[in-house]
Amino acid sequence: MKITESSIISIARSLKHHNASRVIKGIGDDCAVIRTPGAGAMLITTDSFIEGVHFLADQPPESVGAKLLAVNLSDIASMGGRPGEAVITMMLPDSTDLEWVERLYKGLGEVAKEFGVNVVGGDVSRHPDRKSLALTLIGRSRRDEVLYRSRGIPGDYLFVSGTLGDADAGLELLRNPSLNHQSTILNDKYLLPSPRIELGRLLARTHTASACIDLSDGIAVGSRQLAEASGLAIELNRSSIPISNDLNSYCQTRNFDPIDWALRAGGDYELLFSVPPGSRRRVERFAITHPTLPRLTCIGQLISGQPGTVTIKHSELSEKLTDGGWEHFKNGG
Amino acid sequence: MKITESSIISIARSLKHHNASRVIKGIGDDCAVIRTPGAGAMLITTDSFIEGVHFLADQPPESVGAKLLAVNLSDIASMGGRPGEAVITMMLPDSTDLEWVERLYKGLGEVAKEFGVNVVGGDVSRHPDRKSLALTLIGRSRRDEVLYRSRGIPGDYLFVSGTLGDADAGLELLRNPSLNHQSTILNDKYLLPSPRIELGRLLARTHTASACIDLSDGIAVGSRQLAEASGLAIELNRSSIPISNDLNSYCQTRNFDPIDWALRAGGDYELLFSVPPGSRRRVERFAITHPTLPRLTCIGQLISGQPGTVTIKHSELSEKLTDGGWEHFKNGG
Repeated sequence: MKITESSIISIARSLKHHNASRVIKGIGDDCAVIRTPGAGAMLITTDSFIEGVHFLADQPPESVGAKLLAVNLSDIASMGGRPGEAVITMMLPDSTDLEWVERLYKGLGEVAKEFGVNVVGGDVSRHPDRKSLALTLIGRSRRDEVLYRSRGIPGDYLFVSGTLGDADAGLELLRNPSLNHQSTILNDKYLLPSPRIELGRLLARTHTASACIDLSDGIAVGSRQLAEASGLAIELNRSSIPISNDLNSYCQTRNFDPIDWALRAGGDYELLFSVPPGSRRRVERFAITHPTLPRLTCIGQLISGQPGTVTIKHSELSEKLTDGGWEHFKNGG
Repeated sequence: MKITESSIISIARSLKHHNASRVIKGIGDDCAVIRTPGAGAMLITTDSFIEGVHFLADQPPESVGAKLLAVNLSDIASMGGRPGEAVITMMLPDSTDLEWVERLYKGLGEVAKEFGVNVVGGDVSRHPDRKSLALTLIGRSRRDEVLYRSRGIPGDYLFVSGTLGDADAGLELLRNPSLNHQSTILNDKYLLPSPRIELGRLLARTHTASACIDLSDGIAVGSRQLAEASGLAIELNRSSIPISNDLNSYCQTRNFDPIDWALRAGGDYELLFSVPPGSRRRVERFAITHPTLPRLTCIGQLISGQPGTVTIKHSELSEKLTDGGWEHFKNGG
């Protein structure tokens, strides 16, 4: 039998925790959450980065190092944590140039500085085939402030940070110079996503969000996962999906619908979070009270229903959003 | 310029710690050591495991999972820590069979159970070429009990746990069935090294060891690293190197000198530690007071001298031990 991500997760879940009183959350959220003395919690996340899979062979190494840390920071952000220490695993072919490693560390170091991360070591090995990297990041939080994806309540409003679809458009542009369309904004969104640490901390500290997840795999996967974990369904308003001017202009060139693009895209590393109706105004006022935050847009609501079902409202029609595309059906169908 | 491990370490060392008050030890020991509230310290280590480099393509997957955790446990042991949580990164080709993953987790789970480790998550990615794994393990200790490789003092006696050279002989036997020599003990020493957690904890808790390191890369590399970190030289007694009966018998078959073999071999994951002269008797009595410990053998002494120099005493002759072999020279030469 061949592997799938869900089959591996179910094997991993079958492992018992032998020191279970320490584990607040194991597999199934953006970070594991471990009890620490006093009121504290330790957050642990890890992500791998393989040449040709997660980064382009000719991608500037500064961006590879920076993004490897940024995607892990995004996991800490979605749990409301403060970043702490990182270790990096580098599996490198003999042909790797030392300059590549120096530039990787330069990018890594810049993001580490911005977010106060201590890169405290790691491991170097010879890989016979290709550059394969992994980074583990440890964060911390008060236990009662940690944000989970599982605590949404029917009626909660769903917000998303930033704009959607930009990173995948940037990747397309980097891969196909023949598209003959320039956008530094889209390229940068692919090369270096902005971890939403400030937003995650604010939501956690003020107990504003009921649930939160990061959109590493896009809005379709992320909203399904948040809905599933909360045992609820989600209704998104098609016209509310936030689209950047640069994505609009890119989609015009290619004759794509930008919202269709944004609903299918991944890699934006924005936060999707739910807030109780009573806190909706507070979130809307964050734009004034916290001007350094990214744009926050209300794009839908958590509702009772088949857990994990995501529908898109569009005037009279609703569509069911699945990870790879859509199935059309009538309201209530 | 091509990469070497030392060139990468020097790049990694150049990264500043942005939250430096938390970092007690960054790069340069078996684990990073991070200050935690109260009198505590968090230990962090990570190791990668690549098919065809760190494990054989036909190695039983249970042993791959078990050993991946065991080698990380060995790093926690050498710092005197108690193991806590682990996350595993699996980069797997599409062709990977689900049964391989199940068996990997079975082996991982057995070692996790034995040492009370919580495997709390990880990351799965598609790797185009070969199975490439990494594991990060977090441990803990009181800050004043952490063992470092750098705190040896001239005159301290050097002890090693277990016997040396077995794992590499086991690897040879597994790789070359035509050698026509059977030894489950040697095979097992390669397939599943025993992390010396109990020994590390005992040395730490009783403040018996001045310095400690694990012998992942063998006695030549490990003793050089301990000497270098302590700013001292090391003198080993050739005749004291502990050799198992199984290695003696293997070396007889192949017409090798077992001590030469043990001095060049790696992968035993034993602990090498120094103790002040006043504690030597206590360590020798551990065999009686702590009968579950492995054999402990005094194999030499820390001395003043060119930092990192390791010599082997053999009746009238001394040899300088280098990572790959030996240079002969006279006493005092």
